Amino acid sequence: MDYERIIMGIDPGTNVMGYGVLGINGKKIDVIVMGVIELNRFESHYKRLHRIFERVTGLAEQYLPDEVALEAPFFGKNVQSMLKLGRAQGVAMAAVLCRDIPIAEYAPRLVKMAVTGNGQASKEQVANMLRHLLGIPEDKIPKMLDATDALAVALTHYYETGKPAVVKGPSSWKDFLAKNPDRIAKRRQ
Amino acid sequence: MDYERIIMGIDPGTNVMGYGVLGINGKKIDVIVMGVIELNRFESHYKRLHRIFERVTGLAEQYLPDEVALEAPFFGKNVQSMLKLGRAQGVAMAAVLCRDIPIAEYAPRLVKMAVTGNGQASKEQVANMLRHLLGIPEDKIPKMLDATDALAVALTHYYETGKPAVVKGPSSWKDFLAKNPDRIAKRRQ
Repeated sequence: MDYERIIMGIDPGTNVMGYGVLGINGKKIDVIVMGVIELNRFESHYKRLHRIFERVTGLAEQYLPDEVALEAPFFGKNVQSMLKLGRAQGVAMAAVLCRDIPIAEYAPRLVKMAVTGNGQASKEQVANMLRHLLGIPEDKIPKMLDATDALAVALTHYYETGKPAVVKGPSSWKDFLAKNPDRIAKRRQ
Repeated sequence: MDYERIIMGIDPGTNVMGYGVLGINGKKIDVIVMGVIELNRFESHYKRLHRIFERVTGLAEQYLPDEVALEAPFFGKNVQSMLKLGRAQGVAMAAVLCRDIPIAEYAPRLVKMAVTGNGQASKEQVANMLRHLLGIPEDKIPKMLDATDALAVALTHYYETGKPAVVKGPSSWKDFLAKNPDRIAKRRQ
């Protein structure tokens, strides 16, 4: 099926990486695919990074997304884990950037807020809301909620870029947020 | 010229990325190329990452390294800077890993110790020692010492993998270090 716009969401992690692809036609949003890339079985850090690159490349080639949205925490527990996360993000980004596909980033809190109206929502609450919003049958919700998290960031990107008020406004989502710190919360009220 | 072994060193940073390529024939070590990738002129973080991927890809295609050695600090000032550094490293690694070139990492202190015998050596001291060790004319030393730092990590990798005592020993450089914490310092005495 042809879509006007295809958005791939990625939730990168060093153990599990979630992905979800949305196809958009007018106001209709289809879930094209969602899943996880399991990295635990690779002991070597390099093999994990290699795997991320290969799988993200494969997804980009298969689903041809117009845009990629990344769930990206800006803070972490310690410098070591942030370096590892940065590497995982960097490898996924390289697979996307070398195809000239634009990337947008959203903090986890923003994604939860955009999808559920609550920045502190649990992964289960996010998954349930997605089920309702996108009409996903209950038995199609994957066990690993990294997949629904990835779908959530794709949907957040659609919400935040698909609306003329935002597109015509500030040049980027970051500018928009800086100028309208309360906008998302208000929009969901 | 044909070399038995080509080692590319990379010193990844978010503002400047240094690179240096060594060609080895027996005990003879040639500097094939060294330089820097300047990233300051790109304002966008993504453009910088894209540039790193393109340039590292170009270097890998042009010089066909057998191995890549990365200068990689394991600690940093704060989680934000480590995330950015991790991304820069991840993008450079992706360009290397997707060509199935093996990567080794060395902490800055190890590189300084291996090249100068002093883990606290300045960048200038590293550059001067490289000049002597590799016979680089003084006017060929680049202004940006990220290039010589990258050459230093390539040379460190050669020292630590090219010597039978190390190759026949523990399975990895990390194991080797764990088992011989004082080995490098002693070797330089």
